[in-house]
Amino acid sequence: MVDGTSRNWFSAPRIYVENVRNGEAAYQISEKAILDSLSSVCSPVALTCRYSDDRDIDAFRSADVLVASRLETALIASEGKALKLIQCTSAGVEKYAPFSWLAESTMLTNASGVHADKVGDFGLMATLMLHERVPAIATRQRRHAWSRQLRGTAAGRRVMIYGVGALGGAIAQRLHSAGFIVTGVRRGGAPVAGVARMITPDNVHEELPKVEILILACPLTPDTQRVIGLRELSALPQGAGVLNVGRGGVMDHSALVSCLANGHLSGAILDVFDQEPLPGDSLLWDVPNLMVFPHVSADAPDGYIDRCLAILADNLERLSAGKGLRNIVDPMLGY
Amino acid sequence: MVDGTSRNWFSAPRIYVENVRNGEAAYQISEKAILDSLSSVCSPVALTCRYSDDRDIDAFRSADVLVASRLETALIASEGKALKLIQCTSAGVEKYAPFSWLAESTMLTNASGVHADKVGDFGLMATLMLHERVPAIATRQRRHAWSRQLRGTAAGRRVMIYGVGALGGAIAQRLHSAGFIVTGVRRGGAPVAGVARMITPDNVHEELPKVEILILACPLTPDTQRVIGLRELSALPQGAGVLNVGRGGVMDHSALVSCLANGHLSGAILDVFDQEPLPGDSLLWDVPNLMVFPHVSADAPDGYIDRCLAILADNLERLSAGKGLRNIVDPMLGY
Repeated sequence: MVDGTSRNWFSAPRIYVENVRNGEAAYQISEKAILDSLSSVCSPVALTCRYSDDRDIDAFRSADVLVASRLETALIASEGKALKLIQCTSAGVEKYAPFSWLAESTMLTNASGVHADKVGDFGLMATLMLHERVPAIATRQRRHAWSRQLRGTAAGRRVMIYGVGALGGAIAQRLHSAGFIVTGVRRGGAPVAGVARMITPDNVHEELPKVEILILACPLTPDTQRVIGLRELSALPQGAGVLNVGRGGVMDHSALVSCLANGHLSGAILDVFDQEPLPGDSLLWDVPNLMVFPHVSADAPDGYIDRCLAILADNLERLSAGKGLRNIVDPMLGY
Repeated sequence: MVDGTSRNWFSAPRIYVENVRNGEAAYQISEKAILDSLSSVCSPVALTCRYSDDRDIDAFRSADVLVASRLETALIASEGKALKLIQCTSAGVEKYAPFSWLAESTMLTNASGVHADKVGDFGLMATLMLHERVPAIATRQRRHAWSRQLRGTAAGRRVMIYGVGALGGAIAQRLHSAGFIVTGVRRGGAPVAGVARMITPDNVHEELPKVEILILACPLTPDTQRVIGLRELSALPQGAGVLNVGRGGVMDHSALVSCLANGHLSGAILDVFDQEPLPGDSLLWDVPNLMVFPHVSADAPDGYIDRCLAILADNLERLSAGKGLRNIVDPMLGY
C-alpha cells in the first residue's frame, strides 16, 4: 500500500494528533509523548496536536499519520486523502464499520493488546469470583442473609473463552496458570497459549454443556452481534456463571436476566453494556446475582497512551524494514 | 509422651469418632472414611463412630484416638484418660484455650493446612478484588452509580499478610505468583515461600505505611486479640484495603468501620466475625465498601475429611517410625 516512488514518509512523517476535549487524562496524547516514543524510529517533519473542536484543517489535510482515540470518519474520507496510517488508540473499532470511509491507500491500526496485563488480572479475578459465587453472596448481603455454600478449589474447573484475541488470550494465560482448563473459541482455530482446546464458533453448542464459566471477550462484528442468547445460555450446565469483558452487543441481556432469575445461571459479571455509562434506570442494576462493573476490565490508568504509541513506533520501524504491520484492522472482518 | 512400655497402640489403635448430628455433610466422618484412610498404616482393633448426643461412653473411655470436629473438653478431661492422640478436624482450636483440660500424655493435632489450596484461591481472588476496589463498585451498584475509576495492574503492589502459617502461607504463594510483593508477619520471622520480606509483630507499625492491602490470616490467641485496631488501620496509606480470613477477634471492627466511613480505607472483605453466623441485625451488613462473606474462604466441600484423615494417617505412620508429629498444637501457644 506504500507507494514505492514517493519519499519515505515513514522516516520523516507529518503527524496529526487529535484529542477529545475533557476526555479522561489517561487517554490524552501529548506532543511530548509522541516525540518520546518515536525518537528512535523517525524524525517527524510536522507534528500538530489539537482538540477535535479546534482542528487545524490544513495540517490535517497534509498529514501522513493520524493518531486519535475517536475517528471522524466522514472527515477522514473527505480531508484525509494524504493519510498513510491511522493509529486508533482504542482496541475496538467496530463502531466505525463498515469501513467504506477508509481509502485503500490508508492503513488503520488499533490498540489491541495494550490491555493484556490489566485484563488478565481482571479476568482471573472475575473468574474466581464466579467460581466462588460472589455475585450471589453480594446479593444476599443486601438482605443480611448468611448462607454458607462451600465451593471447591478452582483447579480443574472448565472455562470457555469466546474470542481469544488480545483480551481473551491474556485471560486464557492467567486462567491456565491458576489451574483452570480453558477452551478457546476463534474462527481460525489456531492454537493459543494457555488454551487447552481450541474450537471454532460452529462447535460452541456441543461444548457449552461442559463448561462452568463462559467468558465473552470477542469484538463486536455482524457475526458476533447477540451471538450469546437464550439458546447458548440454556446449553450451559445448571449453576454456570457468565463474564462479559468484550462488548455489550455480543450478549442478549434479556436472555441473561431470565437465566439468572430462574436459577439456571448462578451469577454474572458484566463490564460492558449496549449503552455506556449504563443508564441509571436500566433494569440491569438490580438483577439479583448480577454484578455491574463500569467498563474497567481492560484499561489501566498509567502508561496506556505510551503503550499505544509503542505500537505506532514499532509499525513505523516495520515499514522502514519492509515488514508487515501489527495491529492492522482488516476492513472486511472489522478487527 | 508415648509410654514405651505399653503395646504399640498406634499400630492397632482403638479409635473413637464423634460427629455432630445435623452438622454439614462435608464434615461428617464415616467409618468407611477412617478405614480407607488408615488402611495402609494400621489395623484398628476398635472403631466406634457416634453422634455426640448418642455417645458410647465405654468405647470413649478406652479409646487411644479421638477424631472429632468439636471437642467436649470437660468430657475429655474426665473420661478421656486413655487418649493418646486427639485429631481435631478444625484448623482453629483457640476456643478450647486454655488447654488445662488436655492431659500431658495426650497429643492434640489440628487440621491446619487442609485448607491450603482453597484459601489460596480465595486469598488471591479477594486481594485482586481489593486492588480493583470491587467493594466500592458493589456499593455504588446499589445506588445505580457508574463511576469509572481505572486501576492499574496488580504486579508490584505491596501486600502484608499478618500470620503466614498454613492459611497465610498458602495465600502468600498465590499472591507471589500473581506478581504481588508480599511482606509476611510471624513471630519467629523464619522465611516462607512466596514472602519477599519477613518481619516480626514488633516491626509491623513501621511497615504498614508501605502496604496497599493488609491480609489477616493469624490464629486468635491472647497475643492477637484485636491486634489490628485504629492505630494500625490509620497507619496504612490512604486508599488501602483490608481482608480478614483469620478470626473475627483479631480485628477491631468499630475501628474498621470508622476508617471505611472517613474514606481512609477504600474497601474491606471480611470472611470471619466475632459471632457466626453474623447476626441479621449486625451493622456490618450495611457498611459501605465492606463485603461480608459467610466464612467460606478456607473450606472446600469435597474431600475435606479425607484430607484431615490423611494427617492422622501420616501421624500414626510417624509414630511407628519414631518421628515427630505434624500439626501438633502447642498448648502454650494455642495453635
